[in-house]
Amino acid sequence: MKPTIHHIAIAVRDLDAALEFYRDGLGLELTERREAPEEGVEIAFLPAGGVEIELLCPQSSEGGVAAFIEKRGEGLHHICVAVPDIEAAMAQLQASGARLSSESPRVDVHGTRYIFVHPQSAHGVLLELYEMTT
Amino acid sequence: MKPTIHHIAIAVRDLDAALEFYRDGLGLELTERREAPEEGVEIAFLPAGGVEIELLCPQSSEGGVAAFIEKRGEGLHHICVAVPDIEAAMAQLQASGARLSSESPRVDVHGTRYIFVHPQSAHGVLLELYEMTT
Repeated sequence: MKPTIHHIAIAVRDLDAALEFYRDGLGLELTERREAPEEGVEIAFLPAGGVEIELLCPQSSEGGVAAFIEKRGEGLHHICVAVPDIEAAMAQLQASGARLSSESPRVDVHGTRYIFVHPQSAHGVLLELYEMTT
Repeated sequence: MKPTIHHIAIAVRDLDAALEFYRDGLGLELTERREAPEEGVEIAFLPAGGVEIELLCPQSSEGGVAAFIEKRGEGLHHICVAVPDIEAAMAQLQASGARLSSESPRVDVHGTRYIFVHPQSAHGVLLELYEMTT
């Protein structure tokens, strides 16, 4: 099974203002909005076909998303690719010389295993891998 | 019908090097590689589920993609959203205050009508709209 795009994350300064554009202007549906204190952000989820747009809004000046906006402004933050077997994907990436964020996958609050590829390896893209076994 | 993500475009300096990562490392399939002289780029197309990754590589130091890389480095360049009726989408966006790249849609080599939303309106994202009527 080939990798598939799972979501596209966009870093924004003001979640309500961003929803005025992405929901009210562009016409996407907002299916969920919740805080993710472990990442220091509030997230809005807007499915757009088989892919989800996630708006990430920092809740303070701390954390990676706040640092991203401080440095580069609002905009495309990362893309996430779903793979059926994360260890196999990691091995193949490492064999091609790619640098990963850690030696083994992390587990999010939903039990999903994930890891990041360093933007230097992915030609400037912060790339997240999700293991989706179903 | 809601908008759906059509493709994600990534600006790269060296297409062969980028394919080593996205095709050989990540495992995506390369379905097409062609020059787009009207945009001054060579493009590689790699489907990833219902969405396509497009690697854009400037063929000279001229043009928008070359300028993007010069200013920001390699990385996520734009996302493209397919809409069923581009005039209706444009009207809704303009009503929400969004700024578009031109007053009417352009037509690409395949006859597809498209327009861009200015990144200032889309919270730092260069957003392309494609009209996909089928």
